[in-house]
Amino acid sequence: MDLPAYLKRQTTRVDDALDRFLPDEERMPHLLHKAMRYSIFAGGKRIRPILLLAASEAVGGQSDRVLYAASALEMIHTYSLIHDDLPAMDNDDLRRGRPTSHKVFGEAHAILAGDALLTEAFALLTDPGDDFAVAPAVQLRVANIIARAAGAAGMVGGQIVDMESEGGGDELDLPTVEYIHTHKTGALIRAAVEVGAILGGADQRTFKALSRYGELAGLAFQIADDILDVVGDQDVVGKDIGSDEARGKATYVALFGLSEAQSRADELRDMALETLESLGEKAEPLRQIVNFIVARTS
Amino acid sequence: MDLPAYLKRQTTRVDDALDRFLPDEERMPHLLHKAMRYSIFAGGKRIRPILLLAASEAVGGQSDRVLYAASALEMIHTYSLIHDDLPAMDNDDLRRGRPTSHKVFGEAHAILAGDALLTEAFALLTDPGDDFAVAPAVQLRVANIIARAAGAAGMVGGQIVDMESEGGGDELDLPTVEYIHTHKTGALIRAAVEVGAILGGADQRTFKALSRYGELAGLAFQIADDILDVVGDQDVVGKDIGSDEARGKATYVALFGLSEAQSRADELRDMALETLESLGEKAEPLRQIVNFIVARTS
Repeated sequence: MDLPAYLKRQTTRVDDALDRFLPDEERMPHLLHKAMRYSIFAGGKRIRPILLLAASEAVGGQSDRVLYAASALEMIHTYSLIHDDLPAMDNDDLRRGRPTSHKVFGEAHAILAGDALLTEAFALLTDPGDDFAVAPAVQLRVANIIARAAGAAGMVGGQIVDMESEGGGDELDLPTVEYIHTHKTGALIRAAVEVGAILGGADQRTFKALSRYGELAGLAFQIADDILDVVGDQDVVGKDIGSDEARGKATYVALFGLSEAQSRADELRDMALETLESLGEKAEPLRQIVNFIVARTS
Repeated sequence: MDLPAYLKRQTTRVDDALDRFLPDEERMPHLLHKAMRYSIFAGGKRIRPILLLAASEAVGGQSDRVLYAASALEMIHTYSLIHDDLPAMDNDDLRRGRPTSHKVFGEAHAILAGDALLTEAFALLTDPGDDFAVAPAVQLRVANIIARAAGAAGMVGGQIVDMESEGGGDELDLPTVEYIHTHKTGALIRAAVEVGAILGGADQRTFKALSRYGELAGLAFQIADDILDVVGDQDVVGKDIGSDEARGKATYVALFGLSEAQSRADELRDMALETLESLGEKAEPLRQIVNFIVARTS
């Protein structure tokens, strides 16, 4: 299969859905809606929503009824980037090569745009509209998986430990790095795959296999991210290179070096591929995506 | 009825539920959980969750199954206070007489504690656990009402317009003040009453009456808040007095003066009481609460 064409097609579906679900800039309060859209349409790779779509397709789901959850996931991911970039957090001026939200709209608007994106995600996940005909119990389960993955026991917990680990130097240990990886990035990526499986109608055994795929792909993604922060091309990655080391961040590379980190990413990819063995041709996008995650340059 | 005893009893129920639903400080990440609990247990009046409980009782609901939604509402209210107090927003050092979250834990932890409270609220609202036996479709509707009330079309929208209105001086107009009132505070108070009505099993006509009660009580609450910012006792209110005027905020008092603002609050209270006429003795707490809202001193 042609992965670039697949990613492009899915990105267009996700972008169209996001445009439909986000409040219009013409509506009050204009600047809030403008800030929300600025960060959503800032050239993200849409990895999480595309994994959700691919997981749904891998179990035979084909309908557009997954797009509400895919859009909500991208809103949550985007809010986390806006807050992460704030002066009190990572203090980043650039994201994907463009000025960050607080540089364009000011800190207060950036904080509130993040808050609004997170809240709108849950408004969408709990919308009983007939746009998407998902059984209420299933819709609740989907919303709950995403909320747990995004909260104190998931992404936010990972962000806090990541921040607290800065400047840890020799104190860095593998349990801390693994906590950060499984929570900060891993939780939402795993949730994406799990939600795709549920909405696609996976049986319990297939759900478990895909959940494991999501876990492994999420870990591989974060290690690849850490590697890119060392060896990436700044113009391609779109953010400062070397910032993890400058901040003394707890990364896999800091702990084991580049070569060992790349081996670990490759190993995780192979394990992720194994979980898909029983799924046949329909899981080909999931296979190619985990290859892409480990080999990506941005 | 004895309103102080009623408020005290309901506050204890809400506090116990919040303690049960919030992550333990002993669990990692400790400082995040500590910051979440610090602001939740900072002496808030619990107006929103108590209105939810009172609305449920007004239509005959008596069970504890409303406590999950009451707790989620208070988490959302508390997150909004934490973010509102940040240096980039209102830059307040005191809240209810205690140092604000960012003064105690630092800005980054305050931002993330707010994010975590908002997310945990939705984890709770969508939890399919058998602790509370609410039908999935009803639970979804409840979560959706709260998400809409808290987001860009509700509370966050009101906060942004409130902030943008600062220093507006002679430009302040009634539509702006009303937008702020109905969105910033009104939306969540109305949602509290609506959710109580739904979980208590209200029929459509009673739901509409209670929704109107919530709308009116929310407006009265915000006008009373604006009045307190001028005439309140700083030690009793627990935050700086006169800060609205110093910032040139768009308030009802700034537009019409104290006397007219008090008349308007009284008028809204009377209208709110009218909506309860068909509800009899069981709605007595709702009657007393709207009296309290308009006459309160803190």
